[in-house]
Amino acid sequence: MAPNELFQYSIVTALMDGVAESGLTLSDLLPRGDFGLGTFRHMVGEMIVLDGVIYQMKADGSVTSFSRDQLNTTVTPFAMVTHFRPTLSTKVTVKSKGDFGKLLTDLMPQAKNIFSSIRLEGKFKAVVVRTVGGQQHPGEKLSKLAESQVAHSFEDVQGSIVGFRSPSYMQGISVAGDHLHFISADRRQGGHLLELETDGEAELAIAAIRIIHTELPTGDDFVQATLQTDSEGITKAES
Amino acid sequence: MAPNELFQYSIVTALMDGVAESGLTLSDLLPRGDFGLGTFRHMVGEMIVLDGVIYQMKADGSVTSFSRDQLNTTVTPFAMVTHFRPTLSTKVTVKSKGDFGKLLTDLMPQAKNIFSSIRLEGKFKAVVVRTVGGQQHPGEKLSKLAESQVAHSFEDVQGSIVGFRSPSYMQGISVAGDHLHFISADRRQGGHLLELETDGEAELAIAAIRIIHTELPTGDDFVQATLQTDSEGITKAES
Repeated sequence: MAPNELFQYSIVTALMDGVAESGLTLSDLLPRGDFGLGTFRHMVGEMIVLDGVIYQMKADGSVTSFSRDQLNTTVTPFAMVTHFRPTLSTKVTVKSKGDFGKLLTDLMPQAKNIFSSIRLEGKFKAVVVRTVGGQQHPGEKLSKLAESQVAHSFEDVQGSIVGFRSPSYMQGISVAGDHLHFISADRRQGGHLLELETDGEAELAIAAIRIIHTELPTGDDFVQATLQTDSEGITKAES
Repeated sequence: MAPNELFQYSIVTALMDGVAESGLTLSDLLPRGDFGLGTFRHMVGEMIVLDGVIYQMKADGSVTSFSRDQLNTTVTPFAMVTHFRPTLSTKVTVKSKGDFGKLLTDLMPQAKNIFSSIRLEGKFKAVVVRTVGGQQHPGEKLSKLAESQVAHSFEDVQGSIVGFRSPSYMQGISVAGDHLHFISADRRQGGHLLELETDGEAELAIAAIRIIHTELPTGDDFVQATLQTDSEGITKAES
């Protein structure tokens, strides 16, 4: 895969339907991208891929990475990755997630119908994340899990925000709009980004994405899932 | 691209919105697949790709193919192609398009959430096709064009039906359900398939598709389009 192409495994609607039993091994995911996000088997925690390293951020607040053996045996039921080569870099001050969204739109006025990869690096006054605790039973839906998600707040923390903006017509395949994960610089804290405020200027890097490679799962749970797009549910659970 | 992967240029919703001013050259399309369908600049006629040859089937009933020079200068604003290697082949008798749909579902009970490529080869008692006449002005919407489409009926004709079944969650990206084009064996008649009846048994070949490569256009019309999925309109115009 060339730089700034997107590789996506499965679709968000499958997660919403609880399809998280099997998937792609992390060692098969990594050659497709050094930057991105996703989740793990049974939706245990949030995935961030940063500078070629995959991290698992769990609901208990812990963050782990993977040995070579673990990369071969751990699977993801949903992930989006790219070989990120920023085409626009700038310093920004961000007051909130909504503010960040507007800023991205202003910076990329021609990008509403394509994908973008986004990295925001710096010191944050406040970051709020959630981490999904994992399915209590196979097939439990993300829409259900999202109701009992655990939120964590971090203050005065150095770290990275990583993710993608997807066009609205991709709702259900990916998450329409901004889908961002956070990890601290010491790689000890993180999760799915709910809110942020930078401490002064942070370094924003963006790239436009026009080529998307989608791989659909082969597991029985995917084959038999309903996969009816639930736009409201996705917005609630993922944005 | 490996066999039985799908390459798609643009999305169906862009056609619905009238985005058909620019696109991919046919010489850039052909390496991605020897089998498929699509349309041409300004939606002039229907495209079928069969055994590595691209045909343009126009509203006046004519069918043309392309010289090497023409392949370099002719563009498609929307196409879906694959290197088709059937994984299931069987003889079938088909009474109607609805009947054909049920038969495909019976033959591929595990395929509702993935794509399939479909080829039906044989003699037909009756085939009804439509061909879009082309935009009267740049940006005219397919939903509008579909209202004035020209239908042609063929009887006792040898030919090929070529196309794809797409999962319902892909509505708007591609055409959910069966999207099929027809071309006669003498390559003189064809179009977007509306109805069919085989004359005795015809040869059906199918392959499952789990990997999709999507390329999004760079043209201004795509960049600025609304791209709001119109499921009812797509069903009316394309299925």
